[in-house]
Amino acid sequence: MKPIQVGLLGIGTVGSGVFEVLRRNQEEITRRAGRGIEIAAVSRRDTAKARAIVGDAAEVVADARQIIANPDIDIVVELIGGYGLARELVLEAIAAGKHVVTANKALLAVHGTEIFAAAHARGVMVAFEAAVAGGIPIIKALREGLTANRIQWIAGIINGTTNFILSEMRDKGLDFAVALGEAQRLGYAEADPTFDIEGVDAAHKVTLMSAIAFGIPVQFDKAYVEGITKLSAADIKYAEQLGYRIKLLGITKRAEKGIELRVHPALVPSKRLLANVEGAMNAVLVQADAVGTTLYYGKGAGSEPTASAVIADLVDITRLHTANAAQRVPSLAFQPDALSDLPVLPMAEVVTSYYLRLRVADQAGVLATVTGLLAGAGISIDAVLQREADEVGGEGTGPDGTRGVPQTDLIILTHDTREGTMNDAIAQMQALPTVLEPITRIRKEELA
Amino acid sequence: MKPIQVGLLGIGTVGSGVFEVLRRNQEEITRRAGRGIEIAAVSRRDTAKARAIVGDAAEVVADARQIIANPDIDIVVELIGGYGLARELVLEAIAAGKHVVTANKALLAVHGTEIFAAAHARGVMVAFEAAVAGGIPIIKALREGLTANRIQWIAGIINGTTNFILSEMRDKGLDFAVALGEAQRLGYAEADPTFDIEGVDAAHKVTLMSAIAFGIPVQFDKAYVEGITKLSAADIKYAEQLGYRIKLLGITKRAEKGIELRVHPALVPSKRLLANVEGAMNAVLVQADAVGTTLYYGKGAGSEPTASAVIADLVDITRLHTANAAQRVPSLAFQPDALSDLPVLPMAEVVTSYYLRLRVADQAGVLATVTGLLAGAGISIDAVLQREADEVGGEGTGPDGTRGVPQTDLIILTHDTREGTMNDAIAQMQALPTVLEPITRIRKEELA
Repeated sequence: MKPIQVGLLGIGTVGSGVFEVLRRNQEEITRRAGRGIEIAAVSRRDTAKARAIVGDAAEVVADARQIIANPDIDIVVELIGGYGLARELVLEAIAAGKHVVTANKALLAVHGTEIFAAAHARGVMVAFEAAVAGGIPIIKALREGLTANRIQWIAGIINGTTNFILSEMRDKGLDFAVALGEAQRLGYAEADPTFDIEGVDAAHKVTLMSAIAFGIPVQFDKAYVEGITKLSAADIKYAEQLGYRIKLLGITKRAEKGIELRVHPALVPSKRLLANVEGAMNAVLVQADAVGTTLYYGKGAGSEPTASAVIADLVDITRLHTANAAQRVPSLAFQPDALSDLPVLPMAEVVTSYYLRLRVADQAGVLATVTGLLAGAGISIDAVLQREADEVGGEGTGPDGTRGVPQTDLIILTHDTREGTMNDAIAQMQALPTVLEPITRIRKEELA
Repeated sequence: MKPIQVGLLGIGTVGSGVFEVLRRNQEEITRRAGRGIEIAAVSRRDTAKARAIVGDAAEVVADARQIIANPDIDIVVELIGGYGLARELVLEAIAAGKHVVTANKALLAVHGTEIFAAAHARGVMVAFEAAVAGGIPIIKALREGLTANRIQWIAGIINGTTNFILSEMRDKGLDFAVALGEAQRLGYAEADPTFDIEGVDAAHKVTLMSAIAFGIPVQFDKAYVEGITKLSAADIKYAEQLGYRIKLLGITKRAEKGIELRVHPALVPSKRLLANVEGAMNAVLVQADAVGTTLYYGKGAGSEPTASAVIADLVDITRLHTANAAQRVPSLAFQPDALSDLPVLPMAEVVTSYYLRLRVADQAGVLATVTGLLAGAGISIDAVLQREADEVGGEGTGPDGTRGVPQTDLIILTHDTREGTMNDAIAQMQALPTVLEPITRIRKEELA
């Protein structure tokens, strides 16, 4: 049988990985797929650069639309990135009856509803294993491996850049800015790292996992997104003393009134496997009713790990595209006509526990005032850590404006609390004259 | 569309889990599968016990062959276990044109070649996610998630009973027999635990993973199998001091001249995630050329975790059985006509590193003699740990038969060595008059 014909729209880091791995492992891949998989054409505006990668093994064109218009192409792989042109090309490929593979999490998290509907209507597959956690087959696990289950929650380290930075901050006691510089120097962070460090990339990914886990449409605009730029070395150290590590987590959870969808730094108990995922590695923890807890770990980025996921999608399509489209594995795990309208909850409705750090005047009654205020708000305290004034070495301006007043850090861990309740309590505490600086609030996830 | 009709051959722990989870999550499962999945009939010799589980929701028969003969049944789930009747029924179901799901690792590891060939000839699917690592979708990951890769090796904690026992031995300093009794009392070990503690169950599972990873036939008879019954609390303690934990691993590896296939206890660096998989949990580590290292973790046994895997197979078959059989996901990941004849290597050809414990007379020259002998055999030493005689508190019979000679434990870690070479060296060391007891040899896997 003729090999299935693939066209790559864009060939850079990931595309060259796809080309190289397909070439290197062609024999094994064909033995698995029952049919050859051939990159017939690639597009890149600078055709010389594309030619340098593929040589004479594939047609090289400057205009991606030539690939879409080619009737011999069965599968189009979109590796251009971004929302604009990529969206147009994916929709055009679908309209032309091509199956689509993409690693573009941003595109799917924002325009997924439109794209998946178009693919459903046209009867083609859209596969995107590479969009979440790189080479880890987490989309497959959620969409196919755990189909028996009512999934309860997912918590993942799904951005390698931020996990690398947090690992460096902890290992070496570095502040955020220094660790970021280190990550940029080593190539773990881009020159403009905004999408990573502000949590946006992780939010794209958890949005996709949320849709697959709970059978809801992709709703990136409803996600709560908080990055790691405000974390200090001090918080990482205090967390460590309390038996926790701080990780940037993408979390989605089935709550009583809807779905939680959020990205933020979180304290995780040090003994959890997830807390021990270091450097640029990714891991996703899934809690589901029948199987219990499962965890998936591996490289979340890089040319060949990402190519591994793209090619797995190509093999999947080769194996499955002839199946009855009414049952064939749906892009979002649930059949398109069976999505749920469970709402994504506003962050104020989320229930979790908290780490609070208050910079307070080191004087009698402060602890009693703060804990009394929390008690009044119905917030239950799990642990308190108060440092001696000299331990943090601080003297500053007292509540009445006098200088030379001893200060200290007061650390409080709470039990589960509604975020809205915590917001109100923080506002009240912040207004106390003995609270000298903006309160640090980091959420805490026991993951039990 | 009419729900796909399923018959369970045998309904005990796993079967009742399948029934319960399908019932509880029917709505979500149908939304995923695009079609209902209905248990239409179950068989159990004691029909009253079966009736107590399924009530009026399914037909109950005493004779499994009635289910196979039923033309309305699309998928047969074999949950009887063992090799004899289970083999006959699976082959009969295939001959009758039914797709088959089974959790029976022993059956497939021993009779897989016959069963998969029959299924291929008849054009039906045989799925067995539940046969390896319970609810962890590791078969799916290997067969579908990592299809781009040339897999290099797999190392797994794939027997919960032995991992529980080893965790107890380490945590509480227990000897094997005591920890086994504890595991039996808590229901983690069966009354006759032989298959678990001797490594046979793990060998069945790694045999299946090996076939899927490397595209070779299932060859349980070629596996090297060593259990945990000879491990002592002392070895676990020494390993800990050297920075390792001892785990029962199922390992399969692509070597230069063939495939390694082995189950034995192994020292694993304490910092590896795999070393930190505790209690009855399972985890599988996979090294592959494109994706690098990935790890899969979860419950390896139990009614509902196993049911989760069985139902995932039911959904898979529902989604995929209409696809072209020539490309449709093959049972063993590779197309049946594309298997490799790579040999499974005899254990003497395996290359790994070693932990050796020698009980020696505590006298001058012993260390020099032993290390000289290893050097002569071309075995390179990584580390040596020699205890003071009083640390192990031992006095015994000396090499010349005199009593009251101080003894000590000499621990040696080696670099990579061919097992055959190590066998010879151990025989030579054992013959030394200063080596007073049988030498303990435990393999060491760096998993890097």
